Amino acid sequence: MAILQPLIDLASVCFAHGVRHVIVSPGSRSAALTLAFVRHRGFQMHTCMDERSAAFIGLGIAQQLNMPTVLICTSGSAAYNFAPAVAEAFFQHIPLLVLTADRPKEWQHQLDGQTIYQADIYGRHVKRSFEISPDYGHKDVQWAINRIANEALISASSQPWGPVHINIPIREPFYPQETDAFQPSEHIRVFEKIQTNATLSTELWHQMIEELEDGGSVLIAGGQARYDPELSESLEKISEEWGIPVLGDCISNLNLKTHLISRHDLFLGMENAAELRPDLLITFGLSFLSKEFKQFIRRNPPKQHWHIGETAVLSDPMQVLTKSIPVKPAYFFKELFEQVDYQQFVQNTDFDNVCSNIGKWDAFEARSTTGVAKYLDDLRSLNDLTSVDLLFRYIKSEYQLHVANSMAVRYVNVLLTESVTSELFANRGTSGIDGCVSTAIGAARVNSKPTMLIVGDVAFLYDRNGLLAAPLPDNLKIVVLNNGGGNIFRMIDGPGALPEMEEFFETRHSYTARRTCEDSGITYLSVTDLSSLEETLKQFLQAPKISLIEIFTDPYENERVWKGLKATVKSDLIGNA
Amino acid sequence: MAILQPLIDLASVCFAHGVRHVIVSPGSRSAALTLAFVRHRGFQMHTCMDERSAAFIGLGIAQQLNMPTVLICTSGSAAYNFAPAVAEAFFQHIPLLVLTADRPKEWQHQLDGQTIYQADIYGRHVKRSFEISPDYGHKDVQWAINRIANEALISASSQPWGPVHINIPIREPFYPQETDAFQPSEHIRVFEKIQTNATLSTELWHQMIEELEDGGSVLIAGGQARYDPELSESLEKISEEWGIPVLGDCISNLNLKTHLISRHDLFLGMENAAELRPDLLITFGLSFLSKEFKQFIRRNPPKQHWHIGETAVLSDPMQVLTKSIPVKPAYFFKELFEQVDYQQFVQNTDFDNVCSNIGKWDAFEARSTTGVAKYLDDLRSLNDLTSVDLLFRYIKSEYQLHVANSMAVRYVNVLLTESVTSELFANRGTSGIDGCVSTAIGAARVNSKPTMLIVGDVAFLYDRNGLLAAPLPDNLKIVVLNNGGGNIFRMIDGPGALPEMEEFFETRHSYTARRTCEDSGITYLSVTDLSSLEETLKQFLQAPKISLIEIFTDPYENERVWKGLKATVKSDLIGNA
Repeated sequence: MAILQPLIDLASVCFAHGVRHVIVSPGSRSAALTLAFVRHRGFQMHTCMDERSAAFIGLGIAQQLNMPTVLICTSGSAAYNFAPAVAEAFFQHIPLLVLTADRPKEWQHQLDGQTIYQADIYGRHVKRSFEISPDYGHKDVQWAINRIANEALISASSQPWGPVHINIPIREPFYPQETDAFQPSEHIRVFEKIQTNATLSTELWHQMIEELEDGGSVLIAGGQARYDPELSESLEKISEEWGIPVLGDCISNLNLKTHLISRHDLFLGMENAAELRPDLLITFGLSFLSKEFKQFIRRNPPKQHWHIGETAVLSDPMQVLTKSIPVKPAYFFKELFEQVDYQQFVQNTDFDNVCSNIGKWDAFEARSTTGVAKYLDDLRSLNDLTSVDLLFRYIKSEYQLHVANSMAVRYVNVLLTESVTSELFANRGTSGIDGCVSTAIGAARVNSKPTMLIVGDVAFLYDRNGLLAAPLPDNLKIVVLNNGGGNIFRMIDGPGALPEMEEFFETRHSYTARRTCEDSGITYLSVTDLSSLEETLKQFLQAPKISLIEIFTDPYENERVWKGLKATVKSDLIGNA
Repeated sequence: MAILQPLIDLASVCFAHGVRHVIVSPGSRSAALTLAFVRHRGFQMHTCMDERSAAFIGLGIAQQLNMPTVLICTSGSAAYNFAPAVAEAFFQHIPLLVLTADRPKEWQHQLDGQTIYQADIYGRHVKRSFEISPDYGHKDVQWAINRIANEALISASSQPWGPVHINIPIREPFYPQETDAFQPSEHIRVFEKIQTNATLSTELWHQMIEELEDGGSVLIAGGQARYDPELSESLEKISEEWGIPVLGDCISNLNLKTHLISRHDLFLGMENAAELRPDLLITFGLSFLSKEFKQFIRRNPPKQHWHIGETAVLSDPMQVLTKSIPVKPAYFFKELFEQVDYQQFVQNTDFDNVCSNIGKWDAFEARSTTGVAKYLDDLRSLNDLTSVDLLFRYIKSEYQLHVANSMAVRYVNVLLTESVTSELFANRGTSGIDGCVSTAIGAARVNSKPTMLIVGDVAFLYDRNGLLAAPLPDNLKIVVLNNGGGNIFRMIDGPGALPEMEEFFETRHSYTARRTCEDSGITYLSVTDLSSLEETLKQFLQAPKISLIEIFTDPYENERVWKGLKATVKSDLIGNA
């Protein structure tokens, strides 16, 4: 048996648990790990020389497949470069198995190369953090490595899913000899953890339905979540038949056809929106994009706030939580709809209260939608907003959308309609700009669907090293809104008026994506005026391989248009109120 | 008083302690910090949109000035992107004051944007980690922020120097109003910590000198250190007058004119090098680059090993340490030389033992140097080694050299002579490739000297975002040895023979630095054959602004030449032994 046999077998445990994708950054200390996965032959291997991007590529893959992806790096600061993606995965509940090779502990702080303190290096941003002993010859260690691998994989894919870290110290020699057998052991223990479904007793259902019927006007609101057809179907019924409004940002992937409230960020900041206050707020999913929504609820607190979902912490972003219901949202809303006796319910005098707000919500939503459309129709300049708007007229739901943080996700949030995308992804766990490009690359790698990334210039440049990960997927299209800096600082209240805004916040620059595309063999198109946008967009969408369109816009014009949109919608609503 | 007045005053405390350089990555939560330093007007402000590169630029500045540099970032994963540079600074003893803006603790894990667990985020890789309270109106908090700032700066610049982290939660509103006075308070407490010098008693000196005189053959060896003219002068005298060999890698910056042993990596692996075994080994400085040296000492343990230097940990990389002497090396060797009564010493019969090895060391060194020169003279191909060799014939000591990890620093180590550079820097704290470009940019920013970076293609691409930090310094010249991948994996034993070597270790690619240079306005030159190398090098050296020469070499040829160099020197030495 090879000394490092337990690491060879670790790959087999991963395979048995369903792992199929491994991303490797080159390194010497990690050689045995890399070889264990390569030589297993059951894994699709991905490489990227920059660990920061590598980890986000892994995150993009895991996010698509709902299956742990393995990340491998060598010892030293390489492990720290994984950290931004690990934190994002933690808060977005994405399963990653992070394997960091390490020197044995005895070499810590001994002036040896690539040796840092790797144990617990990701702090509280992993579900579990394991450290194995490098005594691979010892029977207990062999048992422990197998057990830890099993536990790590089960932990990563138990609710709430997330990243798990195994730090793996390896002594020299760590390269196999040509004569070494490099075969998995014949018998490898694989633990099965039975998956349970959390359900509620009939008694509890009756109690909750009673509370619902007596609870006054209801609003359902979804935070970030994957598209779940079963959930959407139940919500569609509840919204249509019971007249309960369902609110969702673009990242909640609700795709309802009726009563979906999605323009709330444009109107909930208004004074007359107070009339929309629900008595009972029911939420599910992770973060809300709309700051206006969170502040609206805090200003207009409902009597009750139920949150549906299996989480490890009690998050209370609206500061009004009254009940945590730790079941799957799809189960909850399906059962809710089925348990309620509809005939009796609608005849109940309370029913009028439950659905009493639907008309007002629909009116605000409809007027905002019309307001946005009219405002955009009147615009005659090339700017970020008109660009995304025109793009959305061309792409129908065939695309999976990835949207970068900062302004890109905000533009998309006011323009997205259910027909535009099959599903939308954004790194809203930590809301960093550090891995938007790589996440989309990872997603497209394992996706048969056309995949599109919408990203600003700063987020694009920040993570351009993801484009060093050859081969790039041909089903990926990238839209760069290049406004020459961090345009968001011009938009938000606060920095806009500062004399330091351009130099220290916006950080103006004149970089473009062109040469980065040429370096990576990406078809590059660019637009500098509105008249050529349509034609160039068509070319872009028809390009057979990975392509990027860079739309150059003016930061002052973007500011004017964005603020104008918000002001116009507001004044329309006041005028019509 | 502004609510955030304590943060405005924090900038004044930094100034009072001598901080003059601040590097800022754009962010909203950090606005008050950024403005505090910008509006103080006493600081040179630097910006870089990518926090990973920003932190290494800060490290490069601090390394040059021996003065804490302030890093500022916003909340969330931005703080994690500082981590690779923080770890490097910790192990290389470089003073950084890391200021991370944060949301108040009450928002942790509440599905809020850019909110992660930032307290203690750098683990054991900072000297101190502080967390301040966001109650800026409370008198105790105001006192604490001032005290923490003083303590952090004193800690960062006390032996062993290093990075210190202050996590700074800030509540909304965090942008000043136009009407807000933004002035430092009139009276700001600044603590002075008296600097002491560690000295040894006369009694101890006598005891040590006795041990030295009775201790048999002596070898002095320097690990990584800044160039210290006083230290070098003492070592020069000791080596010349007492006949004690002094060994140093390129990173030890000894620049001795006589008896310096610098080719040891080429000969200490040989069997007949056993005769060089010292009885007493005296070391100072941080890490040794030469693995052969460390292994030679482990194989041939001296009776005593003294390590000179003020450190917080007892590092024992050669596994033979017997005495830690926590004083400055310059003090130790100066006093040692002066305390010894030379006349009596040389007449002492023990003296012959003390210097008994100098002839053998000199012979090995001389023969290796001749061997290298002859080997290079015979080479007729363009490869990494001949490129660095020719470069070194052109640049005289006017350049400060920065050398990236992986092969670049190894090439330089066998070719560097004392006339080539005024001082050499390499990130050997963690030996990562993640910040080599940015560190050189930071250094050149605050350097009046011509500064040159020698870097391989992978390290260059990895950290290319440092080149987004405008304005780039015109006194910087970059030499990229582009061998199309991680050529080191072909050189070292282990991966070379693996069928997976090219795909998963070397990670072959065809990227060049050309377009990255065009993006950043860097004068770009390239060489693909030996005949044009000389002419292009001349143009490169004469270019008036920031310039980069990319030398394209063949990985197979590099492997042949590098292994050939080592084998030739060895066989010469065996032949002559």
